[in-house]
Amino acid sequence: MAAKRKRKQQTPKIEPKRARNLSPGTVKYTGEKSITKTQLDIIDYSIDHYERFETHNIKDAFNFEDSSHITWINVNGLSNTDDIITLGNHFELHKLIQEDIVTTNQRPKIDEYENYLFIVFKMLHYDENEQLTNEHVSMVMGKDYVVMFQEAEGDVFNDLRERLEHGKGRIRGARADYLMFAILDAVVDNYFTVVEFLSNKLEVLEDKLFDDKEDPNIIEEIQDLKKEILKIRKAVVPLREVVNRLEKMESSLIEERTNKYIRDLYDHIIQVNESVEIYREMIWGLMDMYMTTISNKMNEVMKVLTIMASIFIPLTFLAGIYGMNFSNMPELQYHYGYYYLLGAMVLVFFAMIWYFKRKKWL
Amino acid sequence: MAAKRKRKQQTPKIEPKRARNLSPGTVKYTGEKSITKTQLDIIDYSIDHYERFETHNIKDAFNFEDSSHITWINVNGLSNTDDIITLGNHFELHKLIQEDIVTTNQRPKIDEYENYLFIVFKMLHYDENEQLTNEHVSMVMGKDYVVMFQEAEGDVFNDLRERLEHGKGRIRGARADYLMFAILDAVVDNYFTVVEFLSNKLEVLEDKLFDDKEDPNIIEEIQDLKKEILKIRKAVVPLREVVNRLEKMESSLIEERTNKYIRDLYDHIIQVNESVEIYREMIWGLMDMYMTTISNKMNEVMKVLTIMASIFIPLTFLAGIYGMNFSNMPELQYHYGYYYLLGAMVLVFFAMIWYFKRKKWL
Amino acid sequence: MAAKRKRKQQTPKIEPKRARNLSPGTVKYTGEKSITKTQLDIIDYSIDHYERFETHNIKDAFNFEDSSHITWINVNGLSNTDDIITLGNHFELHKLIQEDIVTTNQRPKIDEYENYLFIVFKMLHYDENEQLTNEHVSMVMGKDYVVMFQEAEGDVFNDLRERLEHGKGRIRGARADYLMFAILDAVVDNYFTVVEFLSNKLEVLEDKLFDDKEDPNIIEEIQDLKKEILKIRKAVVPLREVVNRLEKMESSLIEERTNKYIRDLYDHIIQVNESVEIYREMIWGLMDMYMTTISNKMNEVMKVLTIMASIFIPLTFLAGIYGMNFSNMPELQYHYGYYYLLGAMVLVFFAMIWYFKRKKWL
Amino acid sequence: MAAKRKRKQQTPKIEPKRARNLSPGTVKYTGEKSITKTQLDIIDYSIDHYERFETHNIKDAFNFEDSSHITWINVNGLSNTDDIITLGNHFELHKLIQEDIVTTNQRPKIDEYENYLFIVFKMLHYDENEQLTNEHVSMVMGKDYVVMFQEAEGDVFNDLRERLEHGKGRIRGARADYLMFAILDAVVDNYFTVVEFLSNKLEVLEDKLFDDKEDPNIIEEIQDLKKEILKIRKAVVPLREVVNRLEKMESSLIEERTNKYIRDLYDHIIQVNESVEIYREMIWGLMDMYMTTISNKMNEVMKVLTIMASIFIPLTFLAGIYGMNFSNMPELQYHYGYYYLLGAMVLVFFAMIWYFKRKKWL
Amino acid sequence: MAAKRKRKQQTPKIEPKRARNLSPGTVKYTGEKSITKTQLDIIDYSIDHYERFETHNIKDAFNFEDSSHITWINVNGLSNTDDIITLGNHFELHKLIQEDIVTTNQRPKIDEYENYLFIVFKMLHYDENEQLTNEHVSMVMGKDYVVMFQEAEGDVFNDLRERLEHGKGRIRGARADYLMFAILDAVVDNYFTVVEFLSNKLEVLEDKLFDDKEDPNIIEEIQDLKKEILKIRKAVVPLREVVNRLEKMESSLIEERTNKYIRDLYDHIIQVNESVEIYREMIWGLMDMYMTTISNKMNEVMKVLTIMASIFIPLTFLAGIYGMNFSNMPELQYHYGYYYLLGAMVLVFFAMIWYFKRKKWL
Repeated sequence: MAAKRKRKQQTPKIEPKRARNLSPGTVKYTGEKSITKTQLDIIDYSIDHYERFETHNIKDAFNFEDSSHITWINVNGLSNTDDIITLGNHFELHKLIQEDIVTTNQRPKIDEYENYLFIVFKMLHYDENEQLTNEHVSMVMGKDYVVMFQEAEGDVFNDLRERLEHGKGRIRGARADYLMFAILDAVVDNYFTVVEFLSNKLEVLEDKLFDDKEDPNIIEEIQDLKKEILKIRKAVVPLREVVNRLEKMESSLIEERTNKYIRDLYDHIIQVNESVEIYREMIWGLMDMYMTTISNKMNEVMKVLTIMASIFIPLTFLAGIYGMNFSNMPELQYHYGYYYLLGAMVLVFFAMIWYFKRKKWL
Repeated sequence: MAAKRKRKQQTPKIEPKRARNLSPGTVKYTGEKSITKTQLDIIDYSIDHYERFETHNIKDAFNFEDSSHITWINVNGLSNTDDIITLGNHFELHKLIQEDIVTTNQRPKIDEYENYLFIVFKMLHYDENEQLTNEHVSMVMGKDYVVMFQEAEGDVFNDLRERLEHGKGRIRGARADYLMFAILDAVVDNYFTVVEFLSNKLEVLEDKLFDDKEDPNIIEEIQDLKKEILKIRKAVVPLREVVNRLEKMESSLIEERTNKYIRDLYDHIIQVNESVEIYREMIWGLMDMYMTTISNKMNEVMKVLTIMASIFIPLTFLAGIYGMNFSNMPELQYHYGYYYLLGAMVLVFFAMIWYFKRKKWL
Repeated sequence: MAAKRKRKQQTPKIEPKRARNLSPGTVKYTGEKSITKTQLDIIDYSIDHYERFETHNIKDAFNFEDSSHITWINVNGLSNTDDIITLGNHFELHKLIQEDIVTTNQRPKIDEYENYLFIVFKMLHYDENEQLTNEHVSMVMGKDYVVMFQEAEGDVFNDLRERLEHGKGRIRGARADYLMFAILDAVVDNYFTVVEFLSNKLEVLEDKLFDDKEDPNIIEEIQDLKKEILKIRKAVVPLREVVNRLEKMESSLIEERTNKYIRDLYDHIIQVNESVEIYREMIWGLMDMYMTTISNKMNEVMKVLTIMASIFIPLTFLAGIYGMNFSNMPELQYHYGYYYLLGAMVLVFFAMIWYFKRKKWL
Repeated sequence: MAAKRKRKQQTPKIEPKRARNLSPGTVKYTGEKSITKTQLDIIDYSIDHYERFETHNIKDAFNFEDSSHITWINVNGLSNTDDIITLGNHFELHKLIQEDIVTTNQRPKIDEYENYLFIVFKMLHYDENEQLTNEHVSMVMGKDYVVMFQEAEGDVFNDLRERLEHGKGRIRGARADYLMFAILDAVVDNYFTVVEFLSNKLEVLEDKLFDDKEDPNIIEEIQDLKKEILKIRKAVVPLREVVNRLEKMESSLIEERTNKYIRDLYDHIIQVNESVEIYREMIWGLMDMYMTTISNKMNEVMKVLTIMASIFIPLTFLAGIYGMNFSNMPELQYHYGYYYLLGAMVLVFFAMIWYFKRKKWL
Repeated sequence: MAAKRKRKQQTPKIEPKRARNLSPGTVKYTGEKSITKTQLDIIDYSIDHYERFETHNIKDAFNFEDSSHITWINVNGLSNTDDIITLGNHFELHKLIQEDIVTTNQRPKIDEYENYLFIVFKMLHYDENEQLTNEHVSMVMGKDYVVMFQEAEGDVFNDLRERLEHGKGRIRGARADYLMFAILDAVVDNYFTVVEFLSNKLEVLEDKLFDDKEDPNIIEEIQDLKKEILKIRKAVVPLREVVNRLEKMESSLIEERTNKYIRDLYDHIIQVNESVEIYREMIWGLMDMYMTTISNKMNEVMKVLTIMASIFIPLTFLAGIYGMNFSNMPELQYHYGYYYLLGAMVLVFFAMIWYFKRKKWL
């Protein structure tokens, strides 16, 4: 039962792209993580300034906007769509973007508007049950701010925040475009972790297969791994396109010197993608191995049966002959008839053994 | 029998592209839904006006044309080709377009003419027998009208009509191009529903497979799912091209601000397409699972046979030995000979059991 | 034997591309349909004129050339290469074109020359033995004539001729380019018929497979269908390229208004191609089904064997025990010993039955 | 043993691309055909002149160069690299080209230099053991000469030489570019022959498969065919690129009127390529057929076993019953007991036969 | 156990792309080869000068830089990142490049900067355990220097160094771009060696398969070969792109006359790639062969069982009949009854033999 429940959670669900048949541009949350209060986590910084601020009041975010500092606003919780709309209108986000922010199964993409870029991507992680889950994240990058929208708290950006706080690297001196890059970079870094985890699962599975224990669940596990790889690809492949477009984009929002970093990021995401493809091929290989393992086992079973049957069936026949009740069977009266027969049986036995040895079945 | 009939309905039929060997441009209905009277459903609206009107008289449609309002004419029934021709001539549609309107197996496409756009697409739905059927729909979009041609009444646009009636969203204030977008959007929304239904069927099938019950129909059901996916792809892939061309088209009929919506639509149809590809891969995985399930079962059958035979064949041989009628078989005269033999048999029995346990067959 | 002969006819033969090692441009017929006299079928028409004329004298074709009418010359029979050369020289065809006309395995292509277009394509049809055969056809289209070359009489253009004769459609008023389009259109129409026939064969095969009858020829029939699909693709795929190039060609020979028709034709040939791809995938599915069917049958055979053996082997062993001749076997003397044993046997029998029922083998 | 040796010869060897770690541009022969003397075969011709000349003295080749005639120099033997260098320097060939000439596993390519074109291609032929071998050939085409380098004598150009000698076709009147074309044309013609031979082997193999004889070598033969196809593709695919580049090249060395011929050549090589792809697919089909054949045979074996066992095991049990030695077995005393039992056995026998008939196993 | 350890070493590991969540541009070594002292191997040369110099002092490298000679600095050991940074800053390398130098799993790529090119590639070799290992190498090419970074000493450039020392080829007279080419050329040469080694392993495996010995490890070895091929592709495919970009790059750092060599290099790397693809296909073929081998063996096992059982089961039944104890069995009293029966048994025996011969099972 446990195995079945697990499997079901694995099946990639297609949720409605939007609450069905609503007018395009309608802001309606489609995910499952309902919260009562939208939570904001705001970091405001410049080369010689750092301030972090948490609040539940959306309006608080507006105070930071006019400053010459870079402001990173992290919005946790999408179910309270009024807050999203308030925020969206304040930053003058197009209706369709507001819709995409709360449409949790929107695929990764980038949209270029006059005053900001809009990027959707997925965070992947293995939860406590080793299930791969993906979280919908969207990000608006303007001249001096980045607003990020997540379904729930908890993400992969803690190191980034620490770097910001302690002024490590060039981030505090850079503009909002570098912050955007740093966020995507942390996401891709995280993909490496996920792929590594997957690679470990693959190795464990491969060992299991070689250990020759009969585990009828192996096929399910292989199937699950395939689905996880499909899930990862669904996050990685479109993000690769996003970064590629980002690299080629000639936007005034992106500084020349950030381009090198984006190219680097592109290299990394290609690398993730190639690894995924390689693991995919390896899983197909595992499948083949599993099939041949089954066939080999069946072969072995058949051999045992054939050897046993081939040895004893003729012997039993011989015993049957001399168990007949014909009145005139001279051999039965021979004094050593019984022993002669036993000898003949031993001969037959070893002839069969020799035959199977020659056939390399023994 | 039921299973077979069902399967047959599934087989995608290729109907003649047109009544064969007619002159190109001949308007001849190729579908199967014959009706006596073409039915028109006309909605005429502007930002402060809404009127809905049903009729069987084609000429009634002409009254709305000159108004400054947007007119959406829904033509149900294609078998009465005279009506189609009348209408087509009134809107000055090219002969080839008139032909495409009634050629039910025309694949989705877009044609650009000077005064109008012509789009063919497919509506998909599961009927009451859970059979996937597709319906041929074509649409002509002019400056201030949209004429849509369907084979029969009943479609996926009820929510759209309601939005029109109640003036929800920006639709009432927009031009005909936005109506065209809204129609395509509703169609793609519907594809999501269809794919979701398919995903449910896939899950049910997967559970069946894991439930280990022997169901000889599983292979047929997998085959059916494959065909449904082929059918969906046949509708989705060309429509993706259509929307892509629509996005890039520089037509005076499409307003600048509608373009954002079309790009959004394009994202969605790519998403449908990716889901279809993923389900396709999952079905191939199911097939593999089914094959290994069969092999595993055969393996188990073989093991039972081998264990039974390997245990009892040697024992039967021993019994056969002492059933022989040789006059001189001293063991037969031993007082405890019988019991010794029984003991030996028990030994052999447990030796075999131990052997199979070690081989992990038991 | 019949099956084998049939299969052999199916194997796509690669014939020499030309009588080997001849100088390029040598006009040598490579097909198998030898005829004594080249037969000409000439139709000369304009909007108010129609004349049909059959002859064996090549020179007769020259009379029509200068007329302001459109002349369609149908040349049946390619083995008499002198006639082809005479005709070719009269129309000033390049040597390589004359070679291509009689090289029956030339793949479909289009060549643009200053005064004419040269198109090679294949006519497909199922012959009386349901074998798919293809016929090499080439066509030269000049300003006011179309010359078509076929290996033998009999083609798919009868309806076209009738339309010409009775002046149906716009064909009588159009130029030679429209005639060329109409010919290609008839060919593509015919591909639809062929694909439909194939789809019927596929359905019959699928029914056979489900009918569970053991037909060892099914694998051969699947293989034959695969070959037919390869054959169709070999005709369709390059013709698609031809029509595509035709659509994009900026030739003075093709009028603007014909372009719409060619685009339509292109849509149709894409549709044929997609159908072929879908049937191809379905045949692979059939193959899989066949494999699982075999495996399932083997499974069933194994089960019957296992059940029979598992039930009777232990019983026979029991009977063997009490067939032994030990002098001291007290059970043999029990008055009801025999009946007790029979009872035990019945118990074992039902225990086995219960075991197999629980395993769902019965 | 013979089969194994054969197979080994089949395995495509990757030889070092050059004697490893030599300086680029080092002229070192990498093939296996060592000869003592380079042999030259020179044909010098113009429209009214033909001269053929064989020599072992490299310097002799220089006499022809200045003539206004076209000179075709055929160099047989590459192991004597000094000769190659002498010749190469005389024709002012780049060091890298001289290296490519003697590097026998160089893949087909074309290099354009100021005064000449350099083309590498492969000649394929089946040797006397029906093994497919490929020979490295390179060709330098200048304004009025073609120098061709082969590893050994013997090639596919005899018909071409004859045409030259007897002045057939337009070759004697054309320039060196046409000679180059004619050489490539002969090579592609030869590919047709090779593919045809392959197609015959395929057919023989298919017949073997249908003949149902058990030939354990079939799988090896299929594997060998696959390798041959890989070999052919390795020669054809890059040559297709070469011809494609040749067609598009705007070189002063290639006359306008030769272009038509090159386009024709391109058509032919595409045709070879398509055939190879089709045969490749057919071999995969053969593989599938072989697998199902094996499965079908196993099925048949299983059925025979099951039928024999299922019929006789119950009968033997019955006989075992009445072979027991219970003192009180009333049936044994019935006068017709034996005959009743025989009757019962016959009944069981026919019941089983009927059962297997119903299951269609008989 | 040994087999398992071996396999594990084979599994391509994905290491973190950088010490995770460090700031982009952080120089942190990610490999496993820790050394205490970075070792430098410097070659300084011009057409009439050659000097080789080894040191552990990074600063020593700076002496050579200003000379008009070409300087090739080989840095062995990446774990001492301070040295790398010192060197990197001296040559004014971008932070991201310094990061890439020590990030051992960076995939092959080329970056163009104003004053230098940066290339990452992989050296492949089989270690003493026949395990394929790859080593991360990066290279910076400036106007008159090449700096190469390796994880450890030992490489494939000894012949190149020798050529430099002895002034063979054109290398001493050429610029730094030719040195860069020569290094890449040596690397690609080495790929040929690796592929050749792989091809040998493939052949050995194929022979094993044909030798028909039952080696349960074959499937693991096939799997290992697949992984090695994946590894090689991971090194070759991106390097192909690198060389392609190098060929098309219009950098002042690359002289015109070097371009021909780079084009040649590109040909070679395409050739490696094609070979890898061919071996990949051959391994899939091996897999198929292995599957059919298993099936064939099972078939043979089944046949032996079937023949033995089918022959002796009926005979045993006959013996069972006459072992029954019916009081009235007239045959038992016939004087020659026993011999008649033996005769009948011999008849049955030969009938079965004949039957199996006819079925070609014997």
